Amino acid sequence: MTQLFTKTLKNAPADEVAKNAQLLIRAGYVYKVMAGVYAYTPLGLRVLENIKRIVREEMNALNSQELIMSSLQRKETWIETGRWSDEVVDVWFKSKLQDGTDVGFGWTHEEPIVEMLRTYLKSYKDLPMSVYQFQTKLRNELRAKSGIMRGREFVMKDMYSVHATKEDLEVYYDQVIEAYKRCYSRFGIGDDTYVTFASGGAFTKFSHEFQTICDAGEDYIYLHRGKNIAINEEVIDEATKELGVERSELEKVKTAEVGNIFNFGTQKAEEMNLVFTDREGKEQFAYMGSYGIGITRVMGVIVEKFADEKGIVWPENIAPFKIYLVRIGGEAAVKEADALYDELSAKGIEVLYDDRDERPGAKFADSELMGVPYRITVSDRLLEQQRYELTLRASGETILLTRDELLARIG
Amino acid sequence: MTQLFTKTLKNAPADEVAKNAQLLIRAGYVYKVMAGVYAYTPLGLRVLENIKRIVREEMNALNSQELIMSSLQRKETWIETGRWSDEVVDVWFKSKLQDGTDVGFGWTHEEPIVEMLRTYLKSYKDLPMSVYQFQTKLRNELRAKSGIMRGREFVMKDMYSVHATKEDLEVYYDQVIEAYKRCYSRFGIGDDTYVTFASGGAFTKFSHEFQTICDAGEDYIYLHRGKNIAINEEVIDEATKELGVERSELEKVKTAEVGNIFNFGTQKAEEMNLVFTDREGKEQFAYMGSYGIGITRVMGVIVEKFADEKGIVWPENIAPFKIYLVRIGGEAAVKEADALYDELSAKGIEVLYDDRDERPGAKFADSELMGVPYRITVSDRLLEQQRYELTLRASGETILLTRDELLARIG
Repeated sequence: MTQLFTKTLKNAPADEVAKNAQLLIRAGYVYKVMAGVYAYTPLGLRVLENIKRIVREEMNALNSQELIMSSLQRKETWIETGRWSDEVVDVWFKSKLQDGTDVGFGWTHEEPIVEMLRTYLKSYKDLPMSVYQFQTKLRNELRAKSGIMRGREFVMKDMYSVHATKEDLEVYYDQVIEAYKRCYSRFGIGDDTYVTFASGGAFTKFSHEFQTICDAGEDYIYLHRGKNIAINEEVIDEATKELGVERSELEKVKTAEVGNIFNFGTQKAEEMNLVFTDREGKEQFAYMGSYGIGITRVMGVIVEKFADEKGIVWPENIAPFKIYLVRIGGEAAVKEADALYDELSAKGIEVLYDDRDERPGAKFADSELMGVPYRITVSDRLLEQQRYELTLRASGETILLTRDELLARIG
Repeated sequence: MTQLFTKTLKNAPADEVAKNAQLLIRAGYVYKVMAGVYAYTPLGLRVLENIKRIVREEMNALNSQELIMSSLQRKETWIETGRWSDEVVDVWFKSKLQDGTDVGFGWTHEEPIVEMLRTYLKSYKDLPMSVYQFQTKLRNELRAKSGIMRGREFVMKDMYSVHATKEDLEVYYDQVIEAYKRCYSRFGIGDDTYVTFASGGAFTKFSHEFQTICDAGEDYIYLHRGKNIAINEEVIDEATKELGVERSELEKVKTAEVGNIFNFGTQKAEEMNLVFTDREGKEQFAYMGSYGIGITRVMGVIVEKFADEKGIVWPENIAPFKIYLVRIGGEAAVKEADALYDELSAKGIEVLYDDRDERPGAKFADSELMGVPYRITVSDRLLEQQRYELTLRASGETILLTRDELLARIG
């Protein structure tokens, strides 16, 4: 803690209305640059990287390959699909090169990815292809009052798959749904995240969103927990008919969208001429799917969902540290806390060591605001009894343990 | 190779004049979006991540903390130092929020970092501070003909340190020089990279650049290899006087700048009011240093420097794979190449397995174009003699080895 350059703050900026941003700013995870634009401090970056690591593992397991596109995009790329127009897309940031050439800043990468894949896709033998990236998206949102849940600059994992047949795309699409479920489960929000029918495109009646129950969300879904059916409000009439459920059976809940997947069919390929040569040597349009997870948004939703009156509560898998180590007292406490820190660190357990000369109450309050899952207290008084205090952030439960019991519990 | 979505290409785009980009495009490491803007494919991203891993290890060892700032920046941040003006800074990309507010896209992060640090810096006890990021910088360069050596969008590691005293900054500055030397050495360009005197700022007569001997570079330095003295052409008169060397002793060589470090003294702090309370309770301006490494530029310089007529030659530490495994022939070769791939992979050795049904010449040519350090050939003919062919990309040397000899050599 003495080496961390951030500090917990008494107050968030006065113009910050979103709970997630207020808490993240106060706890030192993010720094507000402007409305909807945040820097991620070392603490915040640790959480983001934990989320990304989980997503990366799951996407790699789908044989998808990570790459990184550019933020700068060419106008010509977007003319083909009509989406350069500010009337069609109202979140473009645009600028000009010094010679007057128009450029856009990536708010999505669907068109640029298709344009790139045209270079490499020749034959059915090249398919399927799947690529993904963690990309900083720039969107000129009219309002940006939701903290990191809807920013003007945010990190998204976007994945794109290309297939020779409708069936192959559908199989992959279903595999992605399962991989996404594993992601949300590993983030700690699996139980409250639903695969939700949402509006589709030219090719399919519905797309699928992943919606997490969250009071700070911007969506409403209709939910049947027993049948595990979830429908976005926007398609409630079509979907109830299609699925044979009655609206009266469904519970209306507020949710935040944490992911979405689209089956484009051959629509994108037809718009942008993404073709391949089939077994018979005939040119065919490729089938394509698109799959997004809002990385920074997931972080915001988790803060909103689990925070209590004391602060943030991180699920263990994405917490910046597993342990918050508090030392209270003199020479004996310092010596033992130092030793414990070294021992846990050597075991690969991530410990945030509160080595400050602060009063115990301030240390406890910071550990709660910062939301680290386990707090260990080492004090002169406890050491006399050969005991350590372990406090669980989520439940508030505090237990006294011997050193061996503590290590067994934490390890 | 059958799963990699990129392919080696016969030709780079006709408008691409830089050797580094021509080779990287043909070998499938980058995709050209527009002049000076490139996407990094899975192969290219592996190289970038290897470079970043080395830099991250060295910066962490300096007790610097990684964070990530935003691309979107406020006009007000830059007004304080006068650098919002397009007359002062001619590489700004700018745009507007929907309510008309001006925003800029980060071409550097000096001012935003100082602005952020003001939130956290209170007392001398908070110092020193050091933070760094790997950030995508956007610069509206008039010309962009140097491939990834000078892009309109590129990745930079920028680090900033803050100190209570001039002496503390100077000690850290010298530690950074040593850490940078280790970086370039680990990249494989240490022997040809020189700490070079360059023009300073308001606070110091000189700054330091790291210049790598490279025909495609944009700089000239004057070099004394024996005395290990290097001077940028721009300060040759002042520096020779200062260092007591004669210009005639020095050799003029073409170089590419791969890093630079600045001692700002209290200049930035005075411009932007970055202050702290000292031991006596008095407010003082902080001392600050700034330290950059062009991550994508380093990748480009390495391509330019080591490439031969056959293609790219990656130094082992940053190569996307250590081994390029070629199989030639029928069932026996397939079986043994599969087994060798599994065995090497299990040992954590990164292998690109050319499992394509291609003629041997095409596989060899691709392995050379892609620049993987070691090529192992498994063929029916060699297997009959219980031999494996190992070819070193850099020297072209080819040796025949038994399986045990091969594993000993590679492991």
